[in-house]
Amino acid sequence: MSQLGLLPRRAWTALLSQLLRLPCSSCIQAVRCHSQGTRDLSPQQMVVREKILDLVVSCFKRHGAMGMDTPAFELKEMLTEKYGEGSGLMYDLKDQGGELLSLRYDLTVPFARYLAMNKVKKMKRYHVGKVWRRESPTIVQGRYREFCQCDFDIAGQFDPMIPDAECLKIMCEILNGLQLGDFLIKVNDRRIVDGMFAVCGVPESKFSTICSSIDKLDKMAWKDVRHEMVAKKGLAPEVADRIGDYVQCHGGVSLVEQMFQDPRLSQNKQALEGLGDLKLLFEYLTLFGIAEKISFDLSLARGLDYYTGVIYEAVLLHTPTQAGAEPLSVGSVAAGGRYDGLVGMFDPKGHKVPCVGLSIGVERIFNIVEQRMKTFGEKVRTTETQVLVATPHKNFLQERLKLIAELWDAGIKAEMLYKNNPKLLTQLHYCESTGIPLVVIVGEQELKEGVVKIRSVASREEVAIKRENLVAEIQKRLSES
Amino acid sequence: MSQLGLLPRRAWTALLSQLLRLPCSSCIQAVRCHSQGTRDLSPQQMVVREKILDLVVSCFKRHGAMGMDTPAFELKEMLTEKYGEGSGLMYDLKDQGGELLSLRYDLTVPFARYLAMNKVKKMKRYHVGKVWRRESPTIVQGRYREFCQCDFDIAGQFDPMIPDAECLKIMCEILNGLQLGDFLIKVNDRRIVDGMFAVCGVPESKFSTICSSIDKLDKMAWKDVRHEMVAKKGLAPEVADRIGDYVQCHGGVSLVEQMFQDPRLSQNKQALEGLGDLKLLFEYLTLFGIAEKISFDLSLARGLDYYTGVIYEAVLLHTPTQAGAEPLSVGSVAAGGRYDGLVGMFDPKGHKVPCVGLSIGVERIFNIVEQRMKTFGEKVRTTETQVLVATPHKNFLQERLKLIAELWDAGIKAEMLYKNNPKLLTQLHYCESTGIPLVVIVGEQELKEGVVKIRSVASREEVAIKRENLVAEIQKRLSES
Repeated sequence: MSQLGLLPRRAWTALLSQLLRLPCSSCIQAVRCHSQGTRDLSPQQMVVREKILDLVVSCFKRHGAMGMDTPAFELKEMLTEKYGEGSGLMYDLKDQGGELLSLRYDLTVPFARYLAMNKVKKMKRYHVGKVWRRESPTIVQGRYREFCQCDFDIAGQFDPMIPDAECLKIMCEILNGLQLGDFLIKVNDRRIVDGMFAVCGVPESKFSTICSSIDKLDKMAWKDVRHEMVAKKGLAPEVADRIGDYVQCHGGVSLVEQMFQDPRLSQNKQALEGLGDLKLLFEYLTLFGIAEKISFDLSLARGLDYYTGVIYEAVLLHTPTQAGAEPLSVGSVAAGGRYDGLVGMFDPKGHKVPCVGLSIGVERIFNIVEQRMKTFGEKVRTTETQVLVATPHKNFLQERLKLIAELWDAGIKAEMLYKNNPKLLTQLHYCESTGIPLVVIVGEQELKEGVVKIRSVASREEVAIKRENLVAEIQKRLSES
Repeated sequence: MSQLGLLPRRAWTALLSQLLRLPCSSCIQAVRCHSQGTRDLSPQQMVVREKILDLVVSCFKRHGAMGMDTPAFELKEMLTEKYGEGSGLMYDLKDQGGELLSLRYDLTVPFARYLAMNKVKKMKRYHVGKVWRRESPTIVQGRYREFCQCDFDIAGQFDPMIPDAECLKIMCEILNGLQLGDFLIKVNDRRIVDGMFAVCGVPESKFSTICSSIDKLDKMAWKDVRHEMVAKKGLAPEVADRIGDYVQCHGGVSLVEQMFQDPRLSQNKQALEGLGDLKLLFEYLTLFGIAEKISFDLSLARGLDYYTGVIYEAVLLHTPTQAGAEPLSVGSVAAGGRYDGLVGMFDPKGHKVPCVGLSIGVERIFNIVEQRMKTFGEKVRTTETQVLVATPHKNFLQERLKLIAELWDAGIKAEMLYKNNPKLLTQLHYCESTGIPLVVIVGEQELKEGVVKIRSVASREEVAIKRENLVAEIQKRLSES
C-alpha cells in the first residue's frame, strides 16, 4: 500500500507520543489567521496537502469511487434542518435578488440532494472540497471557518453491512497509509443509542439534545456531561445514571453478545436490530483483517441529525507511557455512518436511497503532519524544477532563452533567472536554496565548441556534452535519479 | 510535451472546424443548471476536467511555479474598485456579525493581497480554484456563476519582458498540449491603448469607459462599437473615427516598427514605452520559437482595470473554408497581462511589486472537449477499477471478502458487488458496462483445488492460478497492459 513516506514509520510513532504530550499552545501554526477566521495556504502547506490528498483519493479510487462536484452554495432551504444544533453556523449569502443561498456546511447533504435531483439510485463517489462553518475559530485545534472535507459514500439498496464494512476498511487503509501512529475506530449504531435512551427512560422529545451531550464524552468527563444533562437539560438524575452505566462500556464483538443478553436493552426492538447488524459487521471486519482496530463503544453518538444506523469515528491513540495506563484519545481524524433517510427528504415523493459513508478529517491530519515536519526541521521542496539554465558570462540571455525553450518543449522542468546578466554565484545559490539538482551552463567557451556543461548541484561535478545531446543526456540523468 | 491524447490531433482539428460552424444552441450541455446559475459536475465531467487540469498544472510546474490557496471569501473592502465595470457582479455574504465579506471574483486580486500582506517581493505561483460572479448565466456560451480559474503569475522586479515572454510561452505550450486546433495570441500594451486614446483626442475621464467599448470588438462589429462610443458615451465622431483607423491594425513585429513611425502615436511617451517593450517581447518570442503565433493587435484592450503594461488574449481559429477568407475568431481561451500597481494598493506604504500573469479559460476548454466527445460518441471511464472479485455460486461472500481485502492491501483497484449471492452474469455485465478489464472468480471447484480463476473481460479467456500467486499474477498482467 502506498505510504506518505515523509518519515520512517517508527520515527513518526515515537514523535507522536512526544508531540501529544506537549501543551496545546505549541501546536499553533505560524499561519496568519485572517480576521474573518480563514487563512491562506502557503506553498509549503500546499505540498503537504497535495501528498495527503493524493493518498486519500488514491484509496477512494482503489475502492472504485467516481469523482463529482457540487456548487459552493446551495438554496438555503435545502440545507436547513439537516444538521441539528449545527444549523446556526451556516453562512448565508446576502439577498442580492433571486433565491436565498447558503454556503455548503458539509458534502453529504449536497450529495443527497444530487442523488434525489438526478434520480440516481446507486452510486459510489468521492468528493474533495471546501465547506464553511461560522464557528469561533480555534486555531489551537486547527479549526478554521473554511476547511477541506474528503468524503467517500456508497448509495444504493444492498445486502446489509457489506458497504458499511468497506467504509471501515477504507478508514483503516488511509490511516495506515498516512502513518499517523496507532488508531482505533469506535463503532455504535443510532438505533442502539435511541434504544438505550428509551430503556433508560429518556423522554423521546429529549433524544436529540441528550444525544448531543453524549457526543461530548470524548472531550468532557462523564460527571460534567451528567451535570449538563441533569442541570441544564432537565433529565432525571436516575435516568442519567442508567445512561452512565451503558456509555462506559466498550469492547469487541463479545460486548455485542453481552448487550444481546442485557435485560433492559434486549427488550427494545430498535436496539436489537442495531446489535444484529453490528454482529454481522464484526464478522465482515474479521474477514477484512481489521477487527482488532474496531471497538464497539456505547458512548459514541455523533452529533449530526441525519444518521440512522451504524456510526463510527476513528481516533489516534498515543502509546501509554506507563504500563497498564489507559490509551489516551487525541481526537477524531475520520468519521461517518449510515443515513438511509436523507435522500428521501429531497425527493418530491419521498423515495429513499440508503447511504453509508465516511469523511476523513484532513485538516486535523494536515496539522499533525505539518507540526511533525516543523519539529523535525524537515523542509519540503515547493517546486519540482529539475534544471536551471545558467551562464557565467554577460550577454548570454539569448542563448539561455533558446536553451530553456528546448528543455520545456521536451517536457523538462526548467527555470532561469529573469535577469539579463545574473551572477553565476547567484544562479548556483538559487539551485541550492530551492533544491534544483542540475544546472545547464552555457558560456563563451561552450558556445564556441558547440557544447554545454551539465553540473550536478550536489556533487559540484561538471561535464561538457554536445549541445545536440543535451535533452537526451538530461532525460537519462533524471530517469536514473 | 504531454498531450491530452483523447483523440488524435488531426481528428480533433478537423472536428473543430465542423463544430464551430454549428449554431450555438447545439453547444448546450446536457447539464442541469440550477436556478441559482450554478451546476453539479457529473463523474464524466470530472474525468475530463481532471485530465485537462493535470495538463495545465503540469505545465505550470514545468515552469517552476509553486501552488498556493486563498479563502473563497475576502473582506469586501479588499475587492472593491479593482475590477472596473465588473465590480457590480460580486457576491456578498449576509451580515451575520463581523466584517463584510464577498466571494472572490478572480484569483489575481487575492494573490496581490497575499503578496502585500506577507511582504513577499518575489514569487512564481499557480492557483487553481473556483470564483463566483453574478452574471446572467448564459449556458450557451458555457458561462455559469461559479467557475474554475487556473492562474499562473510571476511577481517581482526583473529585467523587462523576460517573465512576460514566458507567460506567452506557457499559453502556447498549454494550447498545443490540449490539441484544440489552431490558435492565435493577440498582444497589445495598456500604455499603447492609453497613448492611442490620447493622440486621438479622447478626454482622459473617458479612457476607462472607451477601453470597455474597445474590449467588445471581438464580439461586436466596429460600427456598433463606434455607435456605442458616440451615441451612448458622448465621444466626438471624428475622435471615434481616428480610433477606428488604429483598432483595425494587426500584424507581427513589422506593425510594431510601423507604429514607431506613426506621426501621431510616436509623439506619445507612454505609447513609445509600450512599443519599445513589445519590440523586445517579439525578440524573445522569436527565440522561444513562438513568434508566428503572436499578433500585435491594436483592438485588444482587456476589460479589467488593473493592467498597466503588456496584455494578451489567446483565441482559437478555425481554418477558413474558402481560400483567402479571414480566419474566424471563436472566443478567448486564455488571457492575461502585466499589473504593476495592484500589490501596492494593498500595502500600507504603497510598496509596489510588479506582476505579470495569465489565466487559462478552462471552463470554455472543458465545454469544447466535452462537446467533441459527445459528437464522437466517445465514452470515458469514470472509475479506475482493475479487478472485479466474482463468484458463480451461492454462499461465497466470505471468500470474496477475504480475496478483495488481499487485493486492496496490495494496492490493486478492486470492486465486488454488494450482494450476498449475485448472479455471475450480473457480475460480468458490471465489468463490461464500467470497463473493468479483469475478473477474479472463486467457486466451489476453485476453493477445493486451492486456485482462483482470472478472466479477461475482453477476450473471455480464463486461466486457473494458485490462490497464493493471485496478487503477483494480477500485478504482472496490469503492468503488461
